[in-house]
Amino acid sequence: MDIERSVRAKAKAAKDASRHLALAGTAARNRALAQMADALSRNSEQIREANRRDMEAGEAKGLPKAMLDRLLLTDARIEDMVASLHAVIDLPDPLGRVRSAWQRPNGIQISKVTVPIGAIGVIYESRPNVTVEAGSLCLKAGNAVLLRGGSEAIHSNSALAQLLAESCRAAGLPADCVQFIGVTDRAAVMAMLKMAEYLDLIVPRGGAGLIRTVAENTTIPTLKHDRGLVHIYVDASADVEMATRIVHNAKVQRPGVCNAVETLLVHKDAAPTAVPAIFAALHADSVEIRGCRRTREIAPDVKPATDEDWDAEYLDLILAVKIVDDMEEAIEHIRRYSSGLAEAIVTDHYSNAQRFLDVIDSATVYVNASTRFTDGGQFGLGAEIGISTSKLHARGPMALEELTSTKYIIRGSGQVRE
Amino acid sequence: MDIERSVRAKAKAAKDASRHLALAGTAARNRALAQMADALSRNSEQIREANRRDMEAGEAKGLPKAMLDRLLLTDARIEDMVASLHAVIDLPDPLGRVRSAWQRPNGIQISKVTVPIGAIGVIYESRPNVTVEAGSLCLKAGNAVLLRGGSEAIHSNSALAQLLAESCRAAGLPADCVQFIGVTDRAAVMAMLKMAEYLDLIVPRGGAGLIRTVAENTTIPTLKHDRGLVHIYVDASADVEMATRIVHNAKVQRPGVCNAVETLLVHKDAAPTAVPAIFAALHADSVEIRGCRRTREIAPDVKPATDEDWDAEYLDLILAVKIVDDMEEAIEHIRRYSSGLAEAIVTDHYSNAQRFLDVIDSATVYVNASTRFTDGGQFGLGAEIGISTSKLHARGPMALEELTSTKYIIRGSGQVRE
Repeated sequence: MDIERSVRAKAKAAKDASRHLALAGTAARNRALAQMADALSRNSEQIREANRRDMEAGEAKGLPKAMLDRLLLTDARIEDMVASLHAVIDLPDPLGRVRSAWQRPNGIQISKVTVPIGAIGVIYESRPNVTVEAGSLCLKAGNAVLLRGGSEAIHSNSALAQLLAESCRAAGLPADCVQFIGVTDRAAVMAMLKMAEYLDLIVPRGGAGLIRTVAENTTIPTLKHDRGLVHIYVDASADVEMATRIVHNAKVQRPGVCNAVETLLVHKDAAPTAVPAIFAALHADSVEIRGCRRTREIAPDVKPATDEDWDAEYLDLILAVKIVDDMEEAIEHIRRYSSGLAEAIVTDHYSNAQRFLDVIDSATVYVNASTRFTDGGQFGLGAEIGISTSKLHARGPMALEELTSTKYIIRGSGQVRE
Repeated sequence: MDIERSVRAKAKAAKDASRHLALAGTAARNRALAQMADALSRNSEQIREANRRDMEAGEAKGLPKAMLDRLLLTDARIEDMVASLHAVIDLPDPLGRVRSAWQRPNGIQISKVTVPIGAIGVIYESRPNVTVEAGSLCLKAGNAVLLRGGSEAIHSNSALAQLLAESCRAAGLPADCVQFIGVTDRAAVMAMLKMAEYLDLIVPRGGAGLIRTVAENTTIPTLKHDRGLVHIYVDASADVEMATRIVHNAKVQRPGVCNAVETLLVHKDAAPTAVPAIFAALHADSVEIRGCRRTREIAPDVKPATDEDWDAEYLDLILAVKIVDDMEEAIEHIRRYSSGLAEAIVTDHYSNAQRFLDVIDSATVYVNASTRFTDGGQFGLGAEIGISTSKLHARGPMALEELTSTKYIIRGSGQVRE
């Protein structure tokens, strides 16, 4: 109960701070962000010292090398965080925008304007830069934030969050605009999920287990992304060189992320030329391929795919491949297995491109481009707080706009309802 | 378990139908709505016969007169439903709108377009016209709907829903676009709340008990409104005649609805003139007033307000009244007690009007107009499916736009990520 009391106090402090922050102008919020950039630069030694403690604990615990690498903060990575803060300063203010405005016949003037959401809880795993990303994006959009990072990065996150909070104070905003939960106990997450009185939104950033825990244990609205089971369909008319380039990029450029392709579907008429070309490119980068029966007729040396492969988010250098009779079979396969994040068609057939865009019900649907572009930065939205596969409030890359709500302002001159 | 199986089958059928419906053009959806209007007109006798069974059961059960009145369907009320269907036909199609579109330096073209949400569950209480409202709005926005009405209106709702479903079929759309749960057992609601696999959204329309049940028992996103604890603040500079007109309208014009005022706050300098004028108007319509100590110094014959009165949503001809020292005290009172639906200031002071609009964090904030305008029809949005006090996805009157999602469409020419 001590943990719950402490989390409650922080959540309440965040909510109270959010009321002040909501009235702070663009300049004040940008001033706080500039203070944050400055504080990270000036205190890089202190940040790296905190990070060393996390690294030592991680090594002692025998964390995998990949995880240790994600945990590590170097001077260059701290400078990247500073640069990302300056990038957030440069983004246009998402608040106070008039989304629409009109006058009614009785003379009342209605406008729908963007306002902060309020207090946002962000629950995330290992990478410490999320502390800075989430904190700065929430602040830019006028929201107080309650951060809860992974236990591996506790010292790094705590040091960063403290600098963010002090920067708010230095800029004349409440330090409570950025709150950090330093308790690594899972009970702290469960406590956060109960703070419907104070938190207006929960953003979980992590694996399937975290997403499920959040969904099942809170009445607070959430913005999440589940899995990224991404498909590319190579149509009969596809340019083989283009298809090869796109599939290779979507699989190899960074296989461990949600917008990387997991299943390749190839039209039977394209298969005899496309399959050997694509596989040659993938083999050069050591991608393991698991093919359907017809795939293995063309490329007998690849492993056979089982039913589980169609449902697998590998997040690794593995690709499932299926040859289909036509686009409709590809569409049906995608309907059945897609996680709704990103799908692409490679085609030179106009009507097929249009139909694919119309029919595929995913957050981002591509013609002739790599699914790796499903990313706030690549979309040109600035930094992102995640990629939503929900259909409510936000879908696809979530940037500043998705961290705002709206309210209606109505100006009258004494009108009443008849 | 039989109930759950039956609900699951309907939810799945709705989801399957939603895939077809998502591809139906404006004309096909409007044709189905026209068929609905026609079916209601042609079958008004059958509808009234079903309604008579509900009325008889309601009378036998001793339902209150007000509830029986809400349950009753007359020819005039059926014609109102027909008219509302024609109004929905006349609304612009919310689908396929390009919310924003841009090109990236690498040449990919990104557009964010509106699409249906999918399958929507609507859980509502007594009034049978909600069957038609919810069914038609969901269909216009390309969504299949699973309806679950109150037990009192089971025969009326069932008859109406069947006509809606048949109208879909007659227009060449799947009849399953409109599904109705004919089981009045509460287990049917609990089963619906578990259908995260098939339902993309739940809209509860009803009292606090229903809203809470839904919030606590589902992982499906919901759009709800909680309570309407609405405040009007009469500022020192308010025109007394205007304040009287607005407060009277907001309390008396229809006291049983969420946008009716419940608490009146009066600046101490306005009180000596405003309180007698406003009370005279309210007394003429038999409004019971519960005043704070200072209110009763001016109007000694009103009842004393207790602390519970500041937290009461009367939905009746009762008004709580408090005299405040200044606008800041009014703002603090509103922050503490408001449900975030609608608040108004009556003032002739420019800066106070601006500050009130900035500071009050409610879905709709008014200067010099009645809070009774918080309504999709009054806002000119066409029909509404409810009024949201959530801050995510929809806030304020929810009309067709709020029944849509978006997806990103990306057209490339072979681009890959560097």
